[in-house]
Amino acid sequence: MDYIRQNRANNALRTVKIIPNYLMSPEGSVLIEFGNTKVICTATVEETVPSFLKGKEQGWITAEYGMLPRSTGVRMKREAASGKQGGRTVEIQRLIGRSLRAACDLTKLGERQIIIDCDVIQADGGTRCASITGGFVALSLAINKLLHDNQLTENPLLMQIAAVSVGVVGGVPLLDLDYIEDSGCDSDINVIMGNNGKIVEIQGTAEGAAFNTQELTQLLGLAEIGITQLFDLQQQVLTSVQAA
Amino acid sequence: MDYIRQNRANNALRTVKIIPNYLMSPEGSVLIEFGNTKVICTATVEETVPSFLKGKEQGWITAEYGMLPRSTGVRMKREAASGKQGGRTVEIQRLIGRSLRAACDLTKLGERQIIIDCDVIQADGGTRCASITGGFVALSLAINKLLHDNQLTENPLLMQIAAVSVGVVGGVPLLDLDYIEDSGCDSDINVIMGNNGKIVEIQGTAEGAAFNTQELTQLLGLAEIGITQLFDLQQQVLTSVQAA
Amino acid sequence: MDYIRQNRANNALRTVKIIPNYLMSPEGSVLIEFGNTKVICTATVEETVPSFLKGKEQGWITAEYGMLPRSTGVRMKREAASGKQGGRTVEIQRLIGRSLRAACDLTKLGERQIIIDCDVIQADGGTRCASITGGFVALSLAINKLLHDNQLTENPLLMQIAAVSVGVVGGVPLLDLDYIEDSGCDSDINVIMGNNGKIVEIQGTAEGAAFNTQELTQLLGLAEIGITQLFDLQQQVLTSVQAA
Amino acid sequence: MDYIRQNRANNALRTVKIIPNYLMSPEGSVLIEFGNTKVICTATVEETVPSFLKGKEQGWITAEYGMLPRSTGVRMKREAASGKQGGRTVEIQRLIGRSLRAACDLTKLGERQIIIDCDVIQADGGTRCASITGGFVALSLAINKLLHDNQLTENPLLMQIAAVSVGVVGGVPLLDLDYIEDSGCDSDINVIMGNNGKIVEIQGTAEGAAFNTQELTQLLGLAEIGITQLFDLQQQVLTSVQAA
Amino acid sequence: MDYIRQNRANNALRTVKIIPNYLMSPEGSVLIEFGNTKVICTATVEETVPSFLKGKEQGWITAEYGMLPRSTGVRMKREAASGKQGGRTVEIQRLIGRSLRAACDLTKLGERQIIIDCDVIQADGGTRCASITGGFVALSLAINKLLHDNQLTENPLLMQIAAVSVGVVGGVPLLDLDYIEDSGCDSDINVIMGNNGKIVEIQGTAEGAAFNTQELTQLLGLAEIGITQLFDLQQQVLTSVQAA
Amino acid sequence: MDYIRQNRANNALRTVKIIPNYLMSPEGSVLIEFGNTKVICTATVEETVPSFLKGKEQGWITAEYGMLPRSTGVRMKREAASGKQGGRTVEIQRLIGRSLRAACDLTKLGERQIIIDCDVIQADGGTRCASITGGFVALSLAINKLLHDNQLTENPLLMQIAAVSVGVVGGVPLLDLDYIEDSGCDSDINVIMGNNGKIVEIQGTAEGAAFNTQELTQLLGLAEIGITQLFDLQQQVLTSVQAA
Repeated sequence: MDYIRQNRANNALRTVKIIPNYLMSPEGSVLIEFGNTKVICTATVEETVPSFLKGKEQGWITAEYGMLPRSTGVRMKREAASGKQGGRTVEIQRLIGRSLRAACDLTKLGERQIIIDCDVIQADGGTRCASITGGFVALSLAINKLLHDNQLTENPLLMQIAAVSVGVVGGVPLLDLDYIEDSGCDSDINVIMGNNGKIVEIQGTAEGAAFNTQELTQLLGLAEIGITQLFDLQQQVLTSVQAA
Repeated sequence: MDYIRQNRANNALRTVKIIPNYLMSPEGSVLIEFGNTKVICTATVEETVPSFLKGKEQGWITAEYGMLPRSTGVRMKREAASGKQGGRTVEIQRLIGRSLRAACDLTKLGERQIIIDCDVIQADGGTRCASITGGFVALSLAINKLLHDNQLTENPLLMQIAAVSVGVVGGVPLLDLDYIEDSGCDSDINVIMGNNGKIVEIQGTAEGAAFNTQELTQLLGLAEIGITQLFDLQQQVLTSVQAA
Repeated sequence: MDYIRQNRANNALRTVKIIPNYLMSPEGSVLIEFGNTKVICTATVEETVPSFLKGKEQGWITAEYGMLPRSTGVRMKREAASGKQGGRTVEIQRLIGRSLRAACDLTKLGERQIIIDCDVIQADGGTRCASITGGFVALSLAINKLLHDNQLTENPLLMQIAAVSVGVVGGVPLLDLDYIEDSGCDSDINVIMGNNGKIVEIQGTAEGAAFNTQELTQLLGLAEIGITQLFDLQQQVLTSVQAA
Repeated sequence: MDYIRQNRANNALRTVKIIPNYLMSPEGSVLIEFGNTKVICTATVEETVPSFLKGKEQGWITAEYGMLPRSTGVRMKREAASGKQGGRTVEIQRLIGRSLRAACDLTKLGERQIIIDCDVIQADGGTRCASITGGFVALSLAINKLLHDNQLTENPLLMQIAAVSVGVVGGVPLLDLDYIEDSGCDSDINVIMGNNGKIVEIQGTAEGAAFNTQELTQLLGLAEIGITQLFDLQQQVLTSVQAA
Repeated sequence: MDYIRQNRANNALRTVKIIPNYLMSPEGSVLIEFGNTKVICTATVEETVPSFLKGKEQGWITAEYGMLPRSTGVRMKREAASGKQGGRTVEIQRLIGRSLRAACDLTKLGERQIIIDCDVIQADGGTRCASITGGFVALSLAINKLLHDNQLTENPLLMQIAAVSVGVVGGVPLLDLDYIEDSGCDSDINVIMGNNGKIVEIQGTAEGAAFNTQELTQLLGLAEIGITQLFDLQQQVLTSVQAA
Repeated sequence: MDYIRQNRANNALRTVKIIPNYLMSPEGSVLIEFGNTKVICTATVEETVPSFLKGKEQGWITAEYGMLPRSTGVRMKREAASGKQGGRTVEIQRLIGRSLRAACDLTKLGERQIIIDCDVIQADGGTRCASITGGFVALSLAINKLLHDNQLTENPLLMQIAAVSVGVVGGVPLLDLDYIEDSGCDSDINVIMGNNGKIVEIQGTAEGAAFNTQELTQLLGLAEIGITQLFDLQQQVLTSVQAA
């Protein structure tokens, strides 16, 4: 029998909230919630670039990701105590960094680096997508501050970036999987898109049951529905801050 | 000229808030705020003890401490990425662990371990004291759950524990220093007390100007004023949860 | 002006070679070449499973990936000397592991683990795809040995797995990018498929120029052409070994 | 029944010895003994400062602490082999560094760093206090050498620093606890004072039984008795070296 | 009963092969085989020297050594994953570096470093000797390239260097031990010589049965027989490349 | 002109002292001095064996080596703080372990491990030879204790082991090189012998000028002179302890 989702439609996002300027110190910060998933995203501007970019007249955007030990049902070992970041962490923070760099003309950023820190306070599926979606808002807030302070004269952002997961659970294609759906799913695809309608990154995994091109196309359609709503929310939040 | 504190009396705490059950997964959790300082404290119950206690018919309480990279004004390097916890982190988490073990008859805890994770979301001075004060509430919530679930028949907690910093700034003794006061202070003492009126831990540092026994006594008096109020708040929070 | 590929058609693989039983000790091993890219893949059978699978009556397949320091044009730091595996390495070895687990019914593997080591001797683009394609053959050889030795009575492999990269270079969709094409490409997608015609993993990146669903579909078509040829070659190699 | 100390009065130090210039290479060195506790303290002068002090026209004093694996009854793992310094080590070396910096006007030290290495050859309680007391002498010897060599024209030392532990064992307040007393003690306080009669650092721990302000005052009185004697001994040793 | 060697004389090398320019990127590279032992040796020229040689008007030669996890009968843990190089690895790579530096007048190398990477593809005894013998050829190829490109005007190489193991197995002195002979041997000596007839390094180990000076002399005679043949082979290979 | 040694003959050891039972806790301990070189050697008996020997009915002897940061003229970085043991340390501790294992019938040691810790207090050349020579005495003291306590009924030691360095300085063969001689030497050989007159380990290095078999034989003769004296001293010390 097919999976029947409770409380929301198969093509519906969970309740998404973005609280801008959540912390007092960072150049940009948000608390983003995808249902019970809660991530603090901050943007830090540093007036330096990594050594491999020294003298190349461009900036850089990078990301780091972490989870509080009890963001999850079973306590995860604190990576700082273990002495290294796990493979999943490394994989996710590289994805966040690449996705946000795709949003930006780095040559217009000047010789500075923006670090996006995404720290998961509570995890219920979709933490990397929430991190990218919230990370874009934190990045925008930091860039708006640079523009406001005349450290930048031109906005280097090319487009909005947002992300959502889609997957097939018990034969049913679903948008924005929570942890239980994600654990039991046949296939799981994270889609990162720009508001030019193009895909910036796609990561699909099917340890359970693989998918063919047609099913992939159907899931991408679902993703586009969700991401369009996330673009609207990002825009509202950024507008409300500008107005304030 | 002596330092003049704005907005509150020299013997006043900042606004302190404790939100219990802040996260959905841990056996106990709070968000504690000392003014702008915000720390998430969680208590995790594990049905095992560290190897040095195997077969000794007692439990253990330990603590881990971390700061989000942008909890501070200047971004701190993520310890998970650096590959180790810094000296200050190690020093603080050992203090939290010792302080909370002092609150507990470990032989009555059974062969289990409770891990207190204290993660600083925003730092404005006093993070270790907030961690201990909030950590005690998280610990109590977890123990109440064990009692409620009949995994414990007797409460192993001996007393309440809370902590506050005191110090001399510009010649003036102050209670509960914020970051700016702490940075400019002559001497800085963290006092951890039980509600039996006794001192459990004391850590005093005077890189600027040392203090004599009489001045120490005066600062301990200030600390006792603050800690008494923290005991009341802890009690209110725990009672409200029990009633719920 | 559009990119014009030299020496092979846009939808052609480079010369692919697979030398089975390349090393004398491993239960399975190959040297696989995609043009100038050369990877040694070995399969090691261990009669134990990772601790998270103890007692669960299933096996496990995992992978490790490395590059010789001078497999590349500029010498890479030896990861053993640096003290950790870089993010790219971690990302790739997790991909190889997931891809090969998708080929196998782990419950039929018994409580044993097969480790696939992929070591790049020479790198000219597509090392992860060569690793997966060659890793599958090494895995098959090891499983055939277990069957031959009566340690397995039923073949746990569900299907063949192979992988290839596709991408758009200078506006032109291409199959199996070499290093120079990869460096200059607008978008780059690694496609891992089973011989049931389904996609097992997909990883697409577009730091340069994003792609839409239609372009993605076109690239997946190219990938399918290449992977089909890789399935044939894998089959020939495995048959030749069986016959020997 | 109260604890009865053998061989010495409750307010007596163990036999303390300081052998100056114990090693041939360091700018300053001592072997210090508190009874069976033996620590080699060396002072190394480096004509550079840590990066956070570059260009600030001041010097720095820092400390490192270690124990030989068999300085203790049960062999401790060698920290160099474990790959990191334990929490206790970190805590102690930070304490030594802060204590000795309090003795010095760092702006008069010039842009140089003095590193105090404290290596415990044999441990019988009080190693951190012996390290601070001996470390001060090593530091003084190194500074005297800088003065003698005209690398400094003014002595940057503001006062003498020494340290001792006090504690309550079986209800009895004691000065300078040895290992057995320390293990069985109700509370244990390390007091670091300057010869201006002020407390520079205080670290009190009471996992067993906490203490109130009055008891603390009594223990501080005991500490002052011991530290006064340590100041005399430090002075004698330094004078004897100057005379030589 | 004395050990009887199969297939070759007691004073015979295994079949030795050296394939020059084995990889396309390094300045020098070979695949060297001592029987079933196969090592890839590469030489990388870097136009910089380690910091301890900055400004000293000389060059440096260093070596790194690694084994593929399944170069051996039982899989070895990947050192990059373990987070550090084992003691044996460190010992061997220091030996290779010292041996090759002895072949070179470093002051004639200019302020550049040549890194010799020796990666064992398959191990059957004698990997360090094969690494030194092959490493010398890779080094020579890289230096010949520097001479050819006019980056060097004078050849800094002083002599040829080669290495072989000798040992006593079951009472019988043998040249060039394979893994089984090495495992069962009474004593095992690695001899590294220059073609001036002198010993550059000698490492002898006798966990089983020690040797006296006379036996040592006898084994050195055996080593010289083998090394003389290795010098000839090195020379042939280098000449054939020059001719090409 | 040839090098002229001051104060002692070319075939003379420096003043060697061995103080037995130097520390109160270890099962065996000595302070050994070769002139200004001072090393504390301790032997720790653990009633367990490394995992690779579990159930093999034999014991194990291993060694660890360290240097105090200011044992040398220029301060060395503390390896515990650096996070790993350097290559030289690893090389030396492996040599010490192998040398001492050669002295012992491990099957007669029972399933226990003896750890020899060698910590250099002051370094003036020859620290590895002093460590082996002193380590043998510490090992003997520990084994004598096991025999005395009836934990062993038969002495597993097969012979005495001692070590000395020999080398050619300015053309002159010398016994027992100090640091200055070692730094300027043409070739340097560490010889480890048993009192059966056989060589247990030999490590010869000639970065400066290589040596031929005849020169090696001459240096071995020098080594034998020194080691014979070290055997006598070891014997005297052990006898004096037995008598006490």
